[in-house]
Amino acid sequence: MPIIEMHLLTGRTVAQKRGVAAAITEAVCAQLGVQPQQVRILITEHGGEDFSVAGQTAAMRAEAAAASLPTKDPA
Amino acid sequence: MPIIEMHLLTGRTVAQKRGVAAAITEAVCAQLGVQPQQVRILITEHGGEDFSVAGQTAAMRAEAAAASLPTKDPA
Amino acid sequence: MPIIEMHLLTGRTVAQKRGVAAAITEAVCAQLGVQPQQVRILITEHGGEDFSVAGQTAAMRAEAAAASLPTKDPA
Amino acid sequence: MPIIEMHLLTGRTVAQKRGVAAAITEAVCAQLGVQPQQVRILITEHGGEDFSVAGQTAAMRAEAAAASLPTKDPA
Amino acid sequence: MPIIEMHLLTGRTVAQKRGVAAAITEAVCAQLGVQPQQVRILITEHGGEDFSVAGQTAAMRAEAAAASLPTKDPA
Amino acid sequence: MPIIEMHLLTGRTVAQKRGVAAAITEAVCAQLGVQPQQVRILITEHGGEDFSVAGQTAAMRAEAAAASLPTKDPA
Repeated sequence: MPIIEMHLLTGRTVAQKRGVAAAITEAVCAQLGVQPQQVRILITEHGGEDFSVAGQTAAMRAEAAAASLPTKDPA
Repeated sequence: MPIIEMHLLTGRTVAQKRGVAAAITEAVCAQLGVQPQQVRILITEHGGEDFSVAGQTAAMRAEAAAASLPTKDPA
Repeated sequence: MPIIEMHLLTGRTVAQKRGVAAAITEAVCAQLGVQPQQVRILITEHGGEDFSVAGQTAAMRAEAAAASLPTKDPA
Repeated sequence: MPIIEMHLLTGRTVAQKRGVAAAITEAVCAQLGVQPQQVRILITEHGGEDFSVAGQTAAMRAEAAAASLPTKDPA
Repeated sequence: MPIIEMHLLTGRTVAQKRGVAAAITEAVCAQLGVQPQQVRILITEHGGEDFSVAGQTAAMRAEAAAASLPTKDPA
Repeated sequence: MPIIEMHLLTGRTVAQKRGVAAAITEAVCAQLGVQPQQVRILITEHGGEDFSVAGQTAAMRAEAAAASLPTKDPA
């Protein structure tokens, strides 16, 4: 240990995943005095209908946000 | 918090996911006295070979159930 | 399934836990068309130093909130 | 209970998943004195960029390992 | 990996925990072809009000079972 | 999101928990471009019999390490 499970919305790039794995590992080692080899990180990605806040899924929020965007000048 | 992780077999519709997110959030707020904004729900879906009861995967059970169905031929 | 893991801050009463278990189960059955017997719920409680938002633990927030309370009239 | 969540790298066969579900269930029943019907196992698979040790993802390790393989005799 | 999370009701002995850790590890290695050193197991224990089936906590079930026990022959 | 679950052996100090919550949050925001308010971290602590590697619990390893320590001055 530490064993870390990180839940993310889908869509991160490979570079972001590699960057965050390295940065979390460094942060954990510095703060808890463990060796990098002890730190394991598992990422689980969730789609837009698989994460909700206040009873609304992320996809619902994205739809609502898109609908309230000002229309582009039709002229 | 509360933060809720829900494990489901794959195959729920968008409407079911939105419905259950809203209903769980309402139930949790009513029972625990928290605000909707505090309730986060994560869904993880598992395929038929990724969930087992009594050492048999859901896919094995589905196969067994299909095999034991009475043939339709009424004659 | 569904199998549900719920993370809470410590301190809920037995009545709250029983109430929320019943209410979530009812919500899930109504929305997903499953039988109550299929619904399992696991609660994990986390102490005030074991949950953080924006890098601050719940205990830090509680301390900050207490410190900013108006002092009771010393007169 | 017991409820068991198993995290694996992607790529196991159906036979492996069925085999490990049966074997874990048997092990748990023998050691803890529970009935098979009580044992539920959930598998979550993680891709090569979604699991890291020491701040390096499994995919990074696989690339490094491939790069250090002796070239096959070109003759 | 594999990384395994096992949820148990509280009350297992040290011997049971050591026995099940060894037995699961052996089962996983035999079925998935991994080395013992790769297998990590995390146990989380849940109290009687923190696990429910069909909307009833384990403690509720235990109370109901106790109440329906035949009284011991008073003669 | 991100929502992060961190599993630790018991025994970290309050200062360590606060330090690691802040450092992980900073690392995640810098790498994934999210706001601190979006980052939630849950810590679950596991006792010495509740974490095993290679089928041996942490407590077993600690016992074995203690037993193999050189005796203090044999004279």
